[in-house]
Amino acid sequence: MGLAHQALSQEDVRSLKGDRGIGHVRYSTVGTSSAENAQPVVMSTNFGDIALAHNGEIVNAGRLREDLKKKGWAFATTSDSEIIIRLLANDIADTGDPARSIRNVMSLMNGSYSITLMVDDRVFAVRDPYGIRPLCIGRTKEGFAAASESVVFDTLGGEFMRDVEPGELVEILPGEVKSINTGLARGRAHCMFEWVYIARADSCLDGRLVYDVRRKIGRRLAIEQPVDVDVVVPVPDSGRSHSMGYAEQSGIPYSEGLMKNRYVERTFIMPEQTDRSTSVMLKLNPLKSVIKDKRIALVDDSIVRGTTMRKIVQLVRNAGAKEVHVRIGSPPIRTPCYFGIDMKTRDQFAATGRTVDQIAEMLTADSLGYISVEGLVEAIGHSANDLCLGCLTGEYPLPVEGEKIRFQKKLDSFT
Amino acid sequence: MGLAHQALSQEDVRSLKGDRGIGHVRYSTVGTSSAENAQPVVMSTNFGDIALAHNGEIVNAGRLREDLKKKGWAFATTSDSEIIIRLLANDIADTGDPARSIRNVMSLMNGSYSITLMVDDRVFAVRDPYGIRPLCIGRTKEGFAAASESVVFDTLGGEFMRDVEPGELVEILPGEVKSINTGLARGRAHCMFEWVYIARADSCLDGRLVYDVRRKIGRRLAIEQPVDVDVVVPVPDSGRSHSMGYAEQSGIPYSEGLMKNRYVERTFIMPEQTDRSTSVMLKLNPLKSVIKDKRIALVDDSIVRGTTMRKIVQLVRNAGAKEVHVRIGSPPIRTPCYFGIDMKTRDQFAATGRTVDQIAEMLTADSLGYISVEGLVEAIGHSANDLCLGCLTGEYPLPVEGEKIRFQKKLDSFT
Amino acid sequence: MGLAHQALSQEDVRSLKGDRGIGHVRYSTVGTSSAENAQPVVMSTNFGDIALAHNGEIVNAGRLREDLKKKGWAFATTSDSEIIIRLLANDIADTGDPARSIRNVMSLMNGSYSITLMVDDRVFAVRDPYGIRPLCIGRTKEGFAAASESVVFDTLGGEFMRDVEPGELVEILPGEVKSINTGLARGRAHCMFEWVYIARADSCLDGRLVYDVRRKIGRRLAIEQPVDVDVVVPVPDSGRSHSMGYAEQSGIPYSEGLMKNRYVERTFIMPEQTDRSTSVMLKLNPLKSVIKDKRIALVDDSIVRGTTMRKIVQLVRNAGAKEVHVRIGSPPIRTPCYFGIDMKTRDQFAATGRTVDQIAEMLTADSLGYISVEGLVEAIGHSANDLCLGCLTGEYPLPVEGEKIRFQKKLDSFT
Amino acid sequence: MGLAHQALSQEDVRSLKGDRGIGHVRYSTVGTSSAENAQPVVMSTNFGDIALAHNGEIVNAGRLREDLKKKGWAFATTSDSEIIIRLLANDIADTGDPARSIRNVMSLMNGSYSITLMVDDRVFAVRDPYGIRPLCIGRTKEGFAAASESVVFDTLGGEFMRDVEPGELVEILPGEVKSINTGLARGRAHCMFEWVYIARADSCLDGRLVYDVRRKIGRRLAIEQPVDVDVVVPVPDSGRSHSMGYAEQSGIPYSEGLMKNRYVERTFIMPEQTDRSTSVMLKLNPLKSVIKDKRIALVDDSIVRGTTMRKIVQLVRNAGAKEVHVRIGSPPIRTPCYFGIDMKTRDQFAATGRTVDQIAEMLTADSLGYISVEGLVEAIGHSANDLCLGCLTGEYPLPVEGEKIRFQKKLDSFT
Repeated sequence: MGLAHQALSQEDVRSLKGDRGIGHVRYSTVGTSSAENAQPVVMSTNFGDIALAHNGEIVNAGRLREDLKKKGWAFATTSDSEIIIRLLANDIADTGDPARSIRNVMSLMNGSYSITLMVDDRVFAVRDPYGIRPLCIGRTKEGFAAASESVVFDTLGGEFMRDVEPGELVEILPGEVKSINTGLARGRAHCMFEWVYIARADSCLDGRLVYDVRRKIGRRLAIEQPVDVDVVVPVPDSGRSHSMGYAEQSGIPYSEGLMKNRYVERTFIMPEQTDRSTSVMLKLNPLKSVIKDKRIALVDDSIVRGTTMRKIVQLVRNAGAKEVHVRIGSPPIRTPCYFGIDMKTRDQFAATGRTVDQIAEMLTADSLGYISVEGLVEAIGHSANDLCLGCLTGEYPLPVEGEKIRFQKKLDSFT
Repeated sequence: MGLAHQALSQEDVRSLKGDRGIGHVRYSTVGTSSAENAQPVVMSTNFGDIALAHNGEIVNAGRLREDLKKKGWAFATTSDSEIIIRLLANDIADTGDPARSIRNVMSLMNGSYSITLMVDDRVFAVRDPYGIRPLCIGRTKEGFAAASESVVFDTLGGEFMRDVEPGELVEILPGEVKSINTGLARGRAHCMFEWVYIARADSCLDGRLVYDVRRKIGRRLAIEQPVDVDVVVPVPDSGRSHSMGYAEQSGIPYSEGLMKNRYVERTFIMPEQTDRSTSVMLKLNPLKSVIKDKRIALVDDSIVRGTTMRKIVQLVRNAGAKEVHVRIGSPPIRTPCYFGIDMKTRDQFAATGRTVDQIAEMLTADSLGYISVEGLVEAIGHSANDLCLGCLTGEYPLPVEGEKIRFQKKLDSFT
Repeated sequence: MGLAHQALSQEDVRSLKGDRGIGHVRYSTVGTSSAENAQPVVMSTNFGDIALAHNGEIVNAGRLREDLKKKGWAFATTSDSEIIIRLLANDIADTGDPARSIRNVMSLMNGSYSITLMVDDRVFAVRDPYGIRPLCIGRTKEGFAAASESVVFDTLGGEFMRDVEPGELVEILPGEVKSINTGLARGRAHCMFEWVYIARADSCLDGRLVYDVRRKIGRRLAIEQPVDVDVVVPVPDSGRSHSMGYAEQSGIPYSEGLMKNRYVERTFIMPEQTDRSTSVMLKLNPLKSVIKDKRIALVDDSIVRGTTMRKIVQLVRNAGAKEVHVRIGSPPIRTPCYFGIDMKTRDQFAATGRTVDQIAEMLTADSLGYISVEGLVEAIGHSANDLCLGCLTGEYPLPVEGEKIRFQKKLDSFT
Repeated sequence: MGLAHQALSQEDVRSLKGDRGIGHVRYSTVGTSSAENAQPVVMSTNFGDIALAHNGEIVNAGRLREDLKKKGWAFATTSDSEIIIRLLANDIADTGDPARSIRNVMSLMNGSYSITLMVDDRVFAVRDPYGIRPLCIGRTKEGFAAASESVVFDTLGGEFMRDVEPGELVEILPGEVKSINTGLARGRAHCMFEWVYIARADSCLDGRLVYDVRRKIGRRLAIEQPVDVDVVVPVPDSGRSHSMGYAEQSGIPYSEGLMKNRYVERTFIMPEQTDRSTSVMLKLNPLKSVIKDKRIALVDDSIVRGTTMRKIVQLVRNAGAKEVHVRIGSPPIRTPCYFGIDMKTRDQFAATGRTVDQIAEMLTADSLGYISVEGLVEAIGHSANDLCLGCLTGEYPLPVEGEKIRFQKKLDSFT
């Protein structure tokens, strides 16, 4: 529990033996945040221990769990990972072949999953059939590794090799990374929100450096949603790269007008709504010399609930801004995410049931401009068909109960 | 982890809701001592949560686990309890009847087990077919309860009702305790060591008050193993009741000649051999005015390894005793216990491969006398056939691989 | 904070360097129980660090502190020890001689004090002019040491040498213990409560083994306060030695009729009155086979508030005793202690404003008998003039504001 | 110990009573980092408790302590604050007037000190005679407050009122802030490093917004130390404002080319040299798309040891930079700070005994340019005489043993 350096002491790390392993840094989206749901989950089987770490969300996990309970299974945790490990152990008992059984269990799971796992001393990494969540492989002096973001390899003094393909299973071996075709690939549906907000700016995901994408989003936003202001001010740290692109394209001066308190963590991480809103004042401080008597373009990556942005607009206005115009590096989020981002209900979104003007009014902003879906897609540089835009369009790459599925035909052609 | 008042704060206890539950205070004999093996174990099933707490030891647990792993099961813990819960969940999926399924799972388990469990909101308690470990039921103002020792009810201001019978399953209901005959009873084989050492002196187990049994043991020991000494000195606290009986019968004055340091806990609880022996000096202090120039009968309940007793004999001798005679309230322990006491290998016992005289020599005692098996049995007051004397005789009530089974014929007549 | 083994880890102890030192295990009677008042107190001076640990109570500490504050002193703690160290540092600045300055500071302090202290690398131990609290010196393989109770040397595998005399200052040197006559000795006034209750039974204080004193008290009590009962039952653990003496003298059988829960600590240690009374039921359990239908002599060392004894009497009666007679190994406590025992106000005592019969009624006992002051003094074996009996007689060896002083003349002759 | 939110729980804060108080967030420069040196220090005196929190460093503290020890004082801590409180208590015993005594103690202290203190229920704040460390007063809905940085009032939803003047003593009263002239003012010598590095960018110190000063430093640096490069890259977060000024002035594009790991804290805070250097790689990651094949101007606020900057230069070079030019927003630091910054010895500085070219070589940079002292002074906007530039020039505003003092004459005219 807690940040990695709190959960694992230097001594803990030093006491680790062996030459392979898996680990997980997670913020919980499914299953309660408790020690029993910490990852990796490890279970003992006839083929040795199986350990598994999972990023993403299995849409049909609840269904799978209920079906298995009806068969008489008892579950020790509420995590998807226990389901996966136990299905896997069951299947290996038949096949005797971990790789084949991983493929068999993948065919039962509907959802997003970038998984690293060990079966006894064998290390695997696997990405879901649409590649919704990122997963890549790299090389360090000590050997090969798989990770969600490429910056890991930079930090370790190693280098990024390539992304794991959708539906691809790889085995990390001492001298090589072996690719295993599962035959389950279903095209691409990379989550656009990784580039917009989640990933670190210096990561490269599916061929696109996050920083470059954000800067291009900013430039495109300046073209689509121009505004006559004196200064472009980013919401730190999430809106910084977008803002720079906006300033470059528009020629309007860029200036850091909101200072972050060094010792308060990112809003998204806090567990409860209350904490999120009340902490804005503690976290950001306006620079009057930048803001006072100026017309401001305030740039951020996205608006979910809108409560934080509303407070920031008021903060800027109270600091003496003449006008506050909000520009956002993603289109309005209107529909839930079922694939790993903690946005589960429609009624939480600022954009639900509001026009852009109404959202601007709610934010108390003088104007509000979102990038278009087309603009975002172009900035990312993948075809719209290769992205998951479910939270923007309400059309999802995978069947989700009660939601629309997109390009049904394409799916058929895959089967 | 830790003592109950360390593991559970006042706040933890106050925050508990509901009107029923189970708990467990355990010192681990099978499975490593770690948080994952803490009890009760709770798992989620199609019939609600199943929670289970287990005192005793399933002899065929390893076999059961391996068989289940071969079928493709993966285990989250190394505890017997996970095996039992999951077998139970599987069986209830067939029968739909928790009580019947508990009986079915009991028929698969060979060993000693006093178990309390909840299936959803139903509370059960069950004792193994030989009643090896104790289990009893009582009543408090709040309702009924089951526990290993009757003192629990005294402490709660309630009263002891009766022992659970061997092979009996009871369900604790709001207004009654319902008895369910499993048809699995196989006679009695109560562990003699509960009366000799484990249970609290003020507990009443299977109709015998522990204190009375210990005092009778002491009296019988004085008859079987008389000695001409000036004073009877108990090894505190384990030998106190036996000593009083010895002094009463022999007419020799009783005197506390070894003082316990108030803040050091009982030897048996410490996890490693090293700690056990080095801590004797810290824990006991001889009273020279009692011991000096006297002939001493030093009385304790039992000798397992003999290392502690050897140190105590030397302590007493160094305090100026003229003679030190050791008298022990149980016969020599020569064979392992497979039913819940942490004595697993023959080579650890002082009595292995030694005559009584040789043990006395090893202890550096002037003489050594054990009570006979017959004497012990008489003091307990149950028939020898109704006790488990496996660690004394090497004949066990249940089949254990590589060990002799006792009264095979009797078993047949039960079937 | 906490017990020694909680406050100091094995690592902490191993990391200690050097060949001399002082330590303190304390339960706070003056000053709040907080980390800042933990002992030893260490302060840095022109003569190196001074460290000081103090058992006892300085009656005029408040006066000294106020006087010093008026002179402009500021105090970091509420402990007497800070006052003593700082007076000492001031005095050494004049004398340049730690021993002489210790003597000078002693002459300012009125009260009980057994003190160990270090001035730079010199180790001293000093006992107040009346020797109220115990202090003794002993020898181990590693060298010499001073301690409150002689059992310390037993536990360390060393041996007791002698008591420190009232008003004596000793310096612990590598090869010897040097005695320094302060000229401040004022006779003896050893606290009788050390023998009755506080000290461990196996300690020898001022020439009297505590166990022997308690046994003699029991015998004398049997003569002074006989009773026709079936069995003598001790209140464990405090009344055990007294009870044995009572049983021996009277010829009435001795039996342990109250069992202690192993994991609950001694009443006196709990910080608040509420906890003290409510925990009796959790801590003691009556043995019905010993008590039922019997006439009981219940023996304990002393009665302070009487609330605990009242609960025990009721516990015994509820267990079926026909009669419950209470016998107490000290006379009624009626007046406060100003010298280190936490009994500060008259209105807390069971004996305040009650006859013995009224106390018996309050305890719900069939009869109550205390040992006489003469009997106690005889059992201890020192002259009454050499004991502090202040809490029994209301006459104190030292001047205390608002209280009577005893043998004024004798004091004069000392001056 | 630890960050404020670790040391003080929500409950701790909620449990505070009363309507006034002082607190301290400190990183220790004098005295070891231990609980006993945590601030505020509180001591009990004849005038009530005195509590004191101190930012800065008393140059003659060691001398004062030794003098007082010679007089017989004993010290409980190694902190300057204990000295100050106790001198104060002594003085109030004479004057009976806290304000006058604060003035008297100030006259004994040589060094930098911004102090908040309480004498019983009176709250004072005082700044040293040169105003070396910052101190200001502000107003919130609840009342008045003093703090080191003005952002505190922003965060509390209040407003900055004014700086406390050098040598000024203020008393915070319920309805007003009362100014008391101590007559000790000696001119101004504000630490330039507060604007360059220490203070938050959104603080306003002695009339200058830190952010504006840093931006002006960047512009001036671009004029003094131009370079022909493709992009200006800041060292985050310390060099960001300086970089923006540099980019604006030079017209060279600004780009964030080094990404900070979100969960690693600022170098300066880590306690040991080893940790400082090894953690650079973990904390910063180069953005290849910004850096590769480019000529880079790397801008930071200052160079102390140079070890971190050397690693960053190599990081940037390894990321493919064609050229790496380092530009620094302060002149070379060559002499120690005695007034509160942890730079105590000459041999630690990169600039000691090296020409600028030699430093560049040590850093493995293609070129290195520092701002001039004149340029820095101009950017700050105070007269050089009103700043402490001791670490740059080796001339200090106050007498320090073994160091040169500046403008001796001016000092005389003050006296």
